[in-house]
Amino acid sequence: MNLILLFDDDFTSDSRVRLTGRRLQHVRDVHRAAAGESLAVGIANGRIGRGMITHLGDDALEMDVALDRDPPQSLPLTLILALPRPKVLNRVIAGAASLGIKRIVLINAWRVEKSYWSSPRLTPENLRTQSILGLEQARDTVLPSIETRRLFRPFVENELSAMASGTRALVAHPHATEECPRDVREPVTLVIGPEGGLIDAEIASLERIGFTPVSIGERILRVETAVPFLAARLY
Amino acid sequence: MNLILLFDDDFTSDSRVRLTGRRLQHVRDVHRAAAGESLAVGIANGRIGRGMITHLGDDALEMDVALDRDPPQSLPLTLILALPRPKVLNRVIAGAASLGIKRIVLINAWRVEKSYWSSPRLTPENLRTQSILGLEQARDTVLPSIETRRLFRPFVENELSAMASGTRALVAHPHATEECPRDVREPVTLVIGPEGGLIDAEIASLERIGFTPVSIGERILRVETAVPFLAARLY
Repeated sequence: MNLILLFDDDFTSDSRVRLTGRRLQHVRDVHRAAAGESLAVGIANGRIGRGMITHLGDDALEMDVALDRDPPQSLPLTLILALPRPKVLNRVIAGAASLGIKRIVLINAWRVEKSYWSSPRLTPENLRTQSILGLEQARDTVLPSIETRRLFRPFVENELSAMASGTRALVAHPHATEECPRDVREPVTLVIGPEGGLIDAEIASLERIGFTPVSIGERILRVETAVPFLAARLY
Repeated sequence: MNLILLFDDDFTSDSRVRLTGRRLQHVRDVHRAAAGESLAVGIANGRIGRGMITHLGDDALEMDVALDRDPPQSLPLTLILALPRPKVLNRVIAGAASLGIKRIVLINAWRVEKSYWSSPRLTPENLRTQSILGLEQARDTVLPSIETRRLFRPFVENELSAMASGTRALVAHPHATEECPRDVREPVTLVIGPEGGLIDAEIASLERIGFTPVSIGERILRVETAVPFLAARLY
């Protein structure tokens, strides 16, 4: 936790917060901070700054906060991700949030196992928690929007075209002949398929609405490796 | 497993292998392959190609293999990594191997918890297993060398300079004023610090032997996100 993310509910006055639970524990056990010290803080979807600890006890952490800077820049990247295995979902979401990705759509695909859709990790509460962990890691405040779409074709045929409008539309595909571009300086909508890849019919549907299959070379990366790799490659 | 990595011991003749254990299970349960089908294979530190299944039973998987291509190119990147938490070590190693990194040195640093050094995950056997998983993911065959150094100063003062000779020597550091270069087209030796970062004295030691601190922006990334991010940024 390189920044403590604050929410409206935390404020007891304009510039004072009172925290309990996970954030209190973390400041006590990991930061091992004390009254008088100051910590990096930020308000959800707002500015960042410092919080000076006025009280740190078993009951609560209280800070006087001064928010004087904007959070880091976001990546202009919309990530359309075939739903990963529940085991890796948390770290994929936290990782994407830490990279500054602000829109994520988790979609179905032929090779996504049906059981993944019943994972308790897919609840909005858990996805939000993982996003917060990623933001706190990267000292960002802006929560990503995370949506889910359980039907591939209706999503691609009815929604994705509008979503990708005005952006460079790419689908990562190991067999693509075109190389993934570098340092694009424009918004990108990027589709990443499941373990085992998208099937030909799925790639074809995406191509029909203007997506270009691009390759990052012969190596097939796990999704948790591919997301940061592609984020760095594109920007 | 996008490629089955073979070892000399697996060969029952020049072009025939017999596999049991993990690889047999994976081909049965995940690939759900059958006799007559062919799978991507490669020989450790050698070429890649196809294995045609001649027998698949409870006892063993037998294939006729033809190795006709070189594995993907390696990254000319030596990774000097402050020992990560045991919980993430496996996926950091597998991730680095999947990216094509061929030399990794796990080092101590002020903010590496001492207990990490007693983790059973640090055995050569486990590090090798994780490397193999990364190579099988990325369809590579060339095992990385993974070393450990429990003393920071002697390593930096007596060894690292020679190790980094002829390469661009960089240390990822959130407070650096210089931006991490892109697309360098030369070998790099890259130091990545622990959670919480390297301390000033450690950065100073590295600077004394010619390392340049470089930043990837305001975001502080977890090591498992930073490694693929930096690999893509540099190459």
